Amino acid sequence: MKRHGKVYLIGAGPGDVELLTLKAVRRLGLADVVLIDDLANPEVLQFVPDEAEVVHVGKRGGCASAAQADIEARMLAEAQAGRCVARVKGGDPFVFGRGGEEMQTLLAAGIEVEVINGITAGLAVPATLGIPLTHRDHVHGVTFVSGHTHQGDEPDWAALAKSGMTLVIYMGMSRLGLIAEQLQQGLPADTPAAAIQYGTRPDQREVVGTLATLAADVAAAGLGSPALVVVGPTVGLARLPARSAHSIEKEFA
Amino acid sequence: MKRHGKVYLIGAGPGDVELLTLKAVRRLGLADVVLIDDLANPEVLQFVPDEAEVVHVGKRGGCASAAQADIEARMLAEAQAGRCVARVKGGDPFVFGRGGEEMQTLLAAGIEVEVINGITAGLAVPATLGIPLTHRDHVHGVTFVSGHTHQGDEPDWAALAKSGMTLVIYMGMSRLGLIAEQLQQGLPADTPAAAIQYGTRPDQREVVGTLATLAADVAAAGLGSPALVVVGPTVGLARLPARSAHSIEKEFA
Repeated sequence: MKRHGKVYLIGAGPGDVELLTLKAVRRLGLADVVLIDDLANPEVLQFVPDEAEVVHVGKRGGCASAAQADIEARMLAEAQAGRCVARVKGGDPFVFGRGGEEMQTLLAAGIEVEVINGITAGLAVPATLGIPLTHRDHVHGVTFVSGHTHQGDEPDWAALAKSGMTLVIYMGMSRLGLIAEQLQQGLPADTPAAAIQYGTRPDQREVVGTLATLAADVAAAGLGSPALVVVGPTVGLARLPARSAHSIEKEFA
Repeated sequence: MKRHGKVYLIGAGPGDVELLTLKAVRRLGLADVVLIDDLANPEVLQFVPDEAEVVHVGKRGGCASAAQADIEARMLAEAQAGRCVARVKGGDPFVFGRGGEEMQTLLAAGIEVEVINGITAGLAVPATLGIPLTHRDHVHGVTFVSGHTHQGDEPDWAALAKSGMTLVIYMGMSRLGLIAEQLQQGLPADTPAAAIQYGTRPDQREVVGTLATLAADVAAAGLGSPALVVVGPTVGLARLPARSAHSIEKEFA
C-alpha cells in the first residue's frame, strides 16, 4: 500500500527557540524531510529525527535563496512520494509567511496540510520591552501590517492612523521615513514609536522615540533589517532591557 | 536572606494545550502559586509542580469570579512574600488579557515581571479553517480588535473597513448585527466573514458566510460567546472541517 505524504506548515516563532509550541516540537519529530527558512532559528532542528533530511531554503535578500516556486515544487514532490514534510517558517505561517499560498498549492494537488501556529514577531518582540499591544485604558486592538508589498502598492496609512489601533509594522525599515511621515497625517508627531532589530534574540537592539524622531533615531543607532516598528500610546510604557555586563562584553569583544 | 518573589504573566494559548510554548511549560514548572483564568485551559496545570498552590481566578460573566483588583492584590502579596507566581491567561497576556495593567501594578511595587507570550486566538482559530490572515495577493495585514470596550465607546469601524486589513474581532458576538452593518459602510456586503465558537477545542463550531449574512447565520446556528469573528477576502479560502463520526456521536449523545 502506498504511504500518503503530508505537509506540516510550522511556525518557529520569532527567534527564541523556547517560543516554539509543544505541537510544533511534536510535528518536527515526525518529519522525513525538513524545509527550513533562513528566518527560522536553526536550533529548532534539535527536535527533528536524526535520519531526517534537512534542506535550507531561502529567503534572505539576494544570494542563493531558493525561489518560492522551487520550494513549493520540492514540498509537493516529497509529499507525493509519501514523505512527511515539515515546512518550517519564522513567526507564524499565516502572518506574512506565504503559508496561505503554499497551502493552496498543496491542497490543489490533493496533499494533506496541517498548519501549526507560531508566535509571530508582532506578539513577542514588543513584549521584550514590556509594551502591551492592547490596553483597556488606551487602545482596543492591534494591527500587524507589512510596510513592503510585492506589487509596490501602499497600505492605506491614513486609514491605519485613524483606526486607533497599535500599529506593528513588519518589513518597514527601508521606507521608515516615508511611513512615519504618512502616519503623522493622522497621528500626533509625539506618538510613541519604537524600532526593534533581531527581536527576542541575544543580539536584540532597539530605539524608542516618537513618530517624529524615529527615522533619525534609527539612522543614528545604525539599526537595520530584520526589524519591527511599533507605533502607539502603549509604546510609552517601554522599558529598555538592562544589558548584562556579560552581553555588553560580548557585543564589544 | 529574604527570597525575592517574581511574577510570570503566561499566555496559555487559545484552548488546545499543545499550543503552549516550551517557555510557558518551563515557567509553570517553577511556580509556587498559580493564578489561572477560567478562559485558560486547566490542562496546563499538568506542568505545575505537585506542591504548588492553584487558585482559579475569574473572568466568566457573572458568578463567583474574582475582581481584577483582588487578583492583582493577591499576585502582589504572593510575590512580596517571596513566592514565584505563575499568572496564567488564555491566549496572549498582552492581547486583550489585561496583562499590561497587571504588569504596571507589579512594576510600580518593585516586583520583577516576565511576560511569556501565548498564541492568541486570532492567530490559531482562523488557521483551524485554513484561513490565512495575510496573503500577498489579497491583504497586507491583519487587525485584532475588541468589539466590546469597558467604556462603551466604539472602535472606528469605518477606518477599519477602509484599512484593507483582515479583521479579527474578539468579543463581538453580542453586537454582531451592528458591527456587520457598520463594516458594510466601507466593505462590500459580499465580503467573506466567519464566526467560530470554542476555536481549537474539540467542541469548536463555526459558520461561514458574508458580512451581509453572518448575523443571521450565527443566530440560525445558535452560536454564542466565546467566539471570534473574521472578515476579509481570505475567509473565502475557508474549508470546513470534516467532523468525525466519533465526534458527531459525542455531540448528540
